[in-house]
Amino acid sequence: MSQVLHGIAAGGGITIAPVFVLGSVSLSALHQKTNNMDHEVKRLHDSFSLSKQELVQLDQQAAQKMGHRLQTISTQLAILKDNVFSQLANQLINEDHDNAEWAVQEAGKQLLHLSTVAISSPFWANTVRDLTQRLLSHLLHQPLPDITQIDHRAIIVANSISPTQVVEMNRNLVAGLVTETGGATSHFSLLSEELALPVVVGIPQLLQHVHDDMVMIVDGIHGTVVLSPSPKEIDHYQEIAQKYEESQKAVGSLRNHQTISKDGNHYTIGANLSLLNELPAIQKSGAEGIGIFRTEFLFMDRTELPTEEEQYRAYRKVVSAMHGQRVVIRTLDIGNDKLLTSLKLPDEVNPALGMRGIRISLAHPELLRPQLRAILRASTAGRVAIMFPMISEVEEFNRARALVDEEAQKLEAEGIKIADNIEVGMMVETPAAVMMADQLAKYADFFSIGSNDLIQYLFAADRNNEKVAYLYQALHPAMLRTIRRVIDCGHAEGKWVSMCGEMAALPAAQPLLMAMGLDAFSVPGKRVLPLRQLVHGLSARKLQPLVHQALDAANANAVHKLVQAQLPQLYEN
Amino acid sequence: MSQVLHGIAAGGGITIAPVFVLGSVSLSALHQKTNNMDHEVKRLHDSFSLSKQELVQLDQQAAQKMGHRLQTISTQLAILKDNVFSQLANQLINEDHDNAEWAVQEAGKQLLHLSTVAISSPFWANTVRDLTQRLLSHLLHQPLPDITQIDHRAIIVANSISPTQVVEMNRNLVAGLVTETGGATSHFSLLSEELALPVVVGIPQLLQHVHDDMVMIVDGIHGTVVLSPSPKEIDHYQEIAQKYEESQKAVGSLRNHQTISKDGNHYTIGANLSLLNELPAIQKSGAEGIGIFRTEFLFMDRTELPTEEEQYRAYRKVVSAMHGQRVVIRTLDIGNDKLLTSLKLPDEVNPALGMRGIRISLAHPELLRPQLRAILRASTAGRVAIMFPMISEVEEFNRARALVDEEAQKLEAEGIKIADNIEVGMMVETPAAVMMADQLAKYADFFSIGSNDLIQYLFAADRNNEKVAYLYQALHPAMLRTIRRVIDCGHAEGKWVSMCGEMAALPAAQPLLMAMGLDAFSVPGKRVLPLRQLVHGLSARKLQPLVHQALDAANANAVHKLVQAQLPQLYEN
Repeated sequence: MSQVLHGIAAGGGITIAPVFVLGSVSLSALHQKTNNMDHEVKRLHDSFSLSKQELVQLDQQAAQKMGHRLQTISTQLAILKDNVFSQLANQLINEDHDNAEWAVQEAGKQLLHLSTVAISSPFWANTVRDLTQRLLSHLLHQPLPDITQIDHRAIIVANSISPTQVVEMNRNLVAGLVTETGGATSHFSLLSEELALPVVVGIPQLLQHVHDDMVMIVDGIHGTVVLSPSPKEIDHYQEIAQKYEESQKAVGSLRNHQTISKDGNHYTIGANLSLLNELPAIQKSGAEGIGIFRTEFLFMDRTELPTEEEQYRAYRKVVSAMHGQRVVIRTLDIGNDKLLTSLKLPDEVNPALGMRGIRISLAHPELLRPQLRAILRASTAGRVAIMFPMISEVEEFNRARALVDEEAQKLEAEGIKIADNIEVGMMVETPAAVMMADQLAKYADFFSIGSNDLIQYLFAADRNNEKVAYLYQALHPAMLRTIRRVIDCGHAEGKWVSMCGEMAALPAAQPLLMAMGLDAFSVPGKRVLPLRQLVHGLSARKLQPLVHQALDAANANAVHKLVQAQLPQLYEN
Repeated sequence: MSQVLHGIAAGGGITIAPVFVLGSVSLSALHQKTNNMDHEVKRLHDSFSLSKQELVQLDQQAAQKMGHRLQTISTQLAILKDNVFSQLANQLINEDHDNAEWAVQEAGKQLLHLSTVAISSPFWANTVRDLTQRLLSHLLHQPLPDITQIDHRAIIVANSISPTQVVEMNRNLVAGLVTETGGATSHFSLLSEELALPVVVGIPQLLQHVHDDMVMIVDGIHGTVVLSPSPKEIDHYQEIAQKYEESQKAVGSLRNHQTISKDGNHYTIGANLSLLNELPAIQKSGAEGIGIFRTEFLFMDRTELPTEEEQYRAYRKVVSAMHGQRVVIRTLDIGNDKLLTSLKLPDEVNPALGMRGIRISLAHPELLRPQLRAILRASTAGRVAIMFPMISEVEEFNRARALVDEEAQKLEAEGIKIADNIEVGMMVETPAAVMMADQLAKYADFFSIGSNDLIQYLFAADRNNEKVAYLYQALHPAMLRTIRRVIDCGHAEGKWVSMCGEMAALPAAQPLLMAMGLDAFSVPGKRVLPLRQLVHGLSARKLQPLVHQALDAANANAVHKLVQAQLPQLYEN
């Protein structure tokens, strides 16, 4: 008897192969008190050295196998090099007389609590946990689960898979990956996209149902796995796999096309960029520029601020790689506590309602000015737009824009050229900015709707709080009306309006957004061509009745039903 | 030479008298380890008994002197009775071998951290601190500062004054109170209103400038104190005092009037009610009903839920005391962690964007149903309206309203009478509700704008976070436009619209609110008559140009300037 389990689709394609179960041991320390602190400090030091050697090796492997370094590995190396972690652990040994393994484990926990990055960034939490596990493996002389054991082509099934394991694995032998944990936006899911492997994540208790060499179908398009499939199921999935490949080809043919609806409206589909190593994939994605270039990676998980020069090189690299297509660079959008892995303690009861984005930048122009200078200097390499996050009102925008003008004048006085077509715009993500959008549109060159935060503030519902997640609904008429207002206010002043949150990549939302007149979308690279295909098949004019019904609907469910009735193909997957 | 210092006005009137400096010792424990745990447990127990005796006495004094019990005293008694605090302290002694005073001090800290009430409620933090100080005074054999020492009429000056000290003091000898700490909404400020004494709070380092028997003027209207005033200053302040008394009389004469503007528009001014002991003052305040009856006091700082019967008695008492004037009872508006002084640990990163208000009530109908039954049963004693907090959309409102209907039917089936004029409305405090106000107005019998939360969500700025407090602006055009929309949507469906946040009591906002067509205000009792006086002097029609200018202004400062130019008298104080 076959068994079908449902998870979250995290990688394209379908595969049929035997299972290889990867053990997942979570190492934990016993608490012991010691009087021989020197000995424990020595053991700690050795575990640091061994882990560092391994990570340096993994770092090189990643560069060779994947064509780029992995953020998590360089972050783990940075933590080992940085004083904070080792000081915390040393202190536990010398002052509390703890044994080295306990000190490592506790220092890891403290490192998470010292930085509220942990709260909002599963990446940071996973990185610290992976490093702690590696250190413990040396202290306890217990090996970590070894993904290189696999000796035949198989689907790897595990509770979780760390990015370092992905680096280690032999890509030729791995047919697919399935994990119990993980969500659509987890770091592993993002990494797996790059692997072009069928991947399904988030199937709890999966390991209770599988064993080595059991045959499995992984459908990374729909997020299902079939255990011990029947011949009929195998036939069925082979058929789906073939159709998927054909549609991939058809979509691929749109790579160099413009994005025009059936009734002749032009749209711009940009890609999201958060790390420099995503650039090669974006260049091949068919994107018409970068819709949001998030610059936080330059500031996070390090102990000193990036120099203007370092920023300049990063921005110039991206801007020139896009060959004159628009690159929208968002200035630092980060909370007070997330700046550096320094010892600033979190002190905000509601960080989402605290010092963030432009509020930090205006309070600390010493952060914003070098960034603006670096962007301005990079502007001659192509086409640049500057975007400010978390703007609430005209005065705030104008204060930020004045800094752009000041730095531009200084650069010109220094004889440094800057482009004359730089646009300066803003994200619309606070409800106050929505209310003031008519005024803001007079000053900003463009709007980009940050749907993630905007929905959160509209509904007063933290998207990361599962108890109120039911309130966080992109397709709610309250959100659609909000978007409509922003677009209308932008257009009334002749400005273009984009969206750069997750909603822009939501198939059910895209027809509504294009029909409401959104000019630009910013989506993950791999969503560019499917969106272009969708736009090619739709007429904005013909969608107007649907838009009006959706705006008058009572809730998100009703909107989904309306969209599904008219565009059932969006709900097939 | 006289010296003028500025603080926060916290009580009406002006007084001139010599100073009495009240010492303010903050007792703190030394950490010692003990092997005689039984002895420390005994000492702990004794300090509990002695403190309890004192508090019972203070509780009776309060009832005699002030005509009602004090919430902070009953809470301190409840903490002493409850197991949590004593268990925490006992544990520290028996397991960690701490001395009793250290155990008390640490248990106090833990009690604050166990309950996030501490975060949002200075009341709770102060109550626990006062109790800890009292226990320490017995353990350390050091007396608390004694306010009964005063033997001649004087102005008491102190770093801070606790509510228990207010109870102890001889009202005939105290001419006024001035403290270094405290804000406009601190518990002490609220209590001092009741004293009808000149009170000024929030003058840092005041104690460095004063000494016993120095002559001082306390101006509780404007929040200033004058040290060693000149004869001329004394004359000047006596004149102000006389004017103040005359205007108090004039305002007082409005007590039994309706609230009608110069151009004949009717408004309803209700009072805010948060504790039963505020009822006598509200009955004398001239209020036309209760605009918001906050029911949280029934649920907080206790270990078990209030019964339906207990709630019924409380609601009935208020409803019948208002003699047929409308009492708007808000259902429980409290976060997940604030329900009881139980051991639930806080687990929300952004509590303001989490489980709150109606979200809790719908997830736990076992909380809401008894409350609704109690309200319905109390409805026959007068005129009742039910108000749901934190509603975002029609479905949420209708789910809550359905529970009202169900409980009403059950009561009728049980033969229990309920009134037939009960209104069921909602607070508008999420931006989503603002966007959906046209739909919500079809179902809700009334709207009440909860300005405090609404501003916070509009600007994504936590009002308790001082770093972003500059963004929290009631008079910002984004907020005024939001209010305008809510009023217009309500009126389009023939529903009345109220406001029950602090903005309703803001003199600079009141003319704009009345001119935009707000039907009802809910304000603190002592603000009722000044608002009525203001409304009597203004024409809503003549204010329309001001409203339009304010809605088109760029920021809150611009609005203030507009209002000040037309209504300078609002800015005189």
